[in-house]
Amino acid sequence: MARILTGIQSTGNPHLGNLFGVIFPSIELANSKEGSFFFIADLHSLTHIKDPKILKKFTYKVASVWLSCGLDSGSDRVALYRQSDVPEVTELAWYLTCFYPYQRLKLTHSFKDKLSYLDDVNTGLFTYPLLMASDILLSDAEKIPLGRDQLQHIEITREIAKRFNREMGDIFILPEPIVNEWFIPGLDGKKMSKSRGNVIDIFLSDMELQRQVMTIKTDNSHLHATKNTDRDIVYYLYKLLASKKKVYEMKDSYLEGDYGYFQAKEALYSLLLDSFSIEREKFAFFIQNPFVVEKILAKGALKASKAAKITIDRIRKALGFGDMAEFGLN
Amino acid sequence: MARILTGIQSTGNPHLGNLFGVIFPSIELANSKEGSFFFIADLHSLTHIKDPKILKKFTYKVASVWLSCGLDSGSDRVALYRQSDVPEVTELAWYLTCFYPYQRLKLTHSFKDKLSYLDDVNTGLFTYPLLMASDILLSDAEKIPLGRDQLQHIEITREIAKRFNREMGDIFILPEPIVNEWFIPGLDGKKMSKSRGNVIDIFLSDMELQRQVMTIKTDNSHLHATKNTDRDIVYYLYKLLASKKKVYEMKDSYLEGDYGYFQAKEALYSLLLDSFSIEREKFAFFIQNPFVVEKILAKGALKASKAAKITIDRIRKALGFGDMAEFGLN
Repeated sequence: MARILTGIQSTGNPHLGNLFGVIFPSIELANSKEGSFFFIADLHSLTHIKDPKILKKFTYKVASVWLSCGLDSGSDRVALYRQSDVPEVTELAWYLTCFYPYQRLKLTHSFKDKLSYLDDVNTGLFTYPLLMASDILLSDAEKIPLGRDQLQHIEITREIAKRFNREMGDIFILPEPIVNEWFIPGLDGKKMSKSRGNVIDIFLSDMELQRQVMTIKTDNSHLHATKNTDRDIVYYLYKLLASKKKVYEMKDSYLEGDYGYFQAKEALYSLLLDSFSIEREKFAFFIQNPFVVEKILAKGALKASKAAKITIDRIRKALGFGDMAEFGLN
Repeated sequence: MARILTGIQSTGNPHLGNLFGVIFPSIELANSKEGSFFFIADLHSLTHIKDPKILKKFTYKVASVWLSCGLDSGSDRVALYRQSDVPEVTELAWYLTCFYPYQRLKLTHSFKDKLSYLDDVNTGLFTYPLLMASDILLSDAEKIPLGRDQLQHIEITREIAKRFNREMGDIFILPEPIVNEWFIPGLDGKKMSKSRGNVIDIFLSDMELQRQVMTIKTDNSHLHATKNTDRDIVYYLYKLLASKKKVYEMKDSYLEGDYGYFQAKEALYSLLLDSFSIEREKFAFFIQNPFVVEKILAKGALKASKAAKITIDRIRKALGFGDMAEFGLN
């Protein structure tokens, strides 16, 4: 059975779009597969975040979200860990750096974007696709669930793996992407994304979540008017979560009129609270008990470290570096 | 007392210029200082060498040269080790990469050179000054003996250290260079350097060494003519190694005439054999006993690893990453 790797950004709270697009599908996959690695990409975060307190807070939050959403960290099949707890990834990144042409790396979409709008582009923003390739290749993962916007990273990873294998022998597995095609509209109807700031975060407090739902953009139809369900964001989000019966009820209300967006938003808000009551309760628990999260991450790190050492020793041997185990260095 | 770090290239055999310019002065320094770290830069070599056998061979050769030249690897004050045995250096390199602007790294002299004459410039050739900065900063070294052509690397290292300290607190020692101003002429009279291919390698076999000495460039003066000692390379090299008495004797022969360059070269060759008889004997021993070298390098790696873990934990704490020791991961 294929080993799965999922990298998790730690530069902000996962939102509803992340939940449906990545978190739930990955967790479902994890529960049905042999070995699943979930890492919180805190080394990547360092390209943006230089405040240790914020970095740690994001790590705990993101880990808490995944645990709250049903990731079974107690299972032997799953490892949830911090990227920085498996520093072999930086070692492999250096090796890969020696196998990937500078001129090709300059062509990466995301870097060209950043050069155009960031004042201070640190070198990490340039080389991070190689760290990402290292994340993937170090894990020996065969399947990588990700969003369509991340496909270039898999392409780069496969290209490096091929170059390396051609020169050094059959060292790396060529990973394959699993693209999730979910579309979750944000508050403004465009794709929900952190950078657009149009997110719904189900882990906010009741009041903050309610406030967020109330800012969903709607058309100007009068309370009494019949309403169009085709392009309405509130209805779209409601449909994602509600039972068929409830969806029909709301549809009828929209078509009959005398049913305002405020009421629809109230219904959506209640539904969010209802649908995610377990997740929200668990999240509150983990946030109040960071030590529990820390223990889970440490356990995951041990599991991931063990796997990483096996891979890195194979690579070191191929390159002509000493097998550290020979000298009792690890 | 200041801690010393010396990085040793492993892309070729050290030559006579290296011996006088770096090896002897560094060893002398090491014998008088508190803690001295000598590492063989095999991770850097990967930017050029993708053949594991060649990489290993160079590592043993270079280690053998240093050991033959009097590096006291038995002393507690000295650690001779392979860079690749202390992979914390790649971890720190990633952190530094997030603190150094891409646009500034592009300005590095050596990279601009390489872009102009190499076909395949891998990304490692671009980022290696950051790995070099990591070598230095990881060691907490205060003094770095090096050649004048390497000064830019110390400048970059100091700049990164300052940027890091400014943002994250007082983490790094600012290292200072010790520049060795030795000039050793090569076979063609220009500075002896591997890239120019004008070297004398005292660790060659007798016959090969003799052949090398015989190719030293001289002027066209006739055997019977008096000769100019001022610009003669053979005489210059002889003077470096011979006793005063012998130097005067050769000078007299040059001025009297009837003393040909062949004779002078023969004298230089004999002197090289004589002066470096112990080094050559030791070298032959180490080359025939790689396991002895391997044990010394492994011992050095343990020493260097211990120091590296202390530094890296300090840096990890500053950045907000877990202290691995807390979780028993190391």
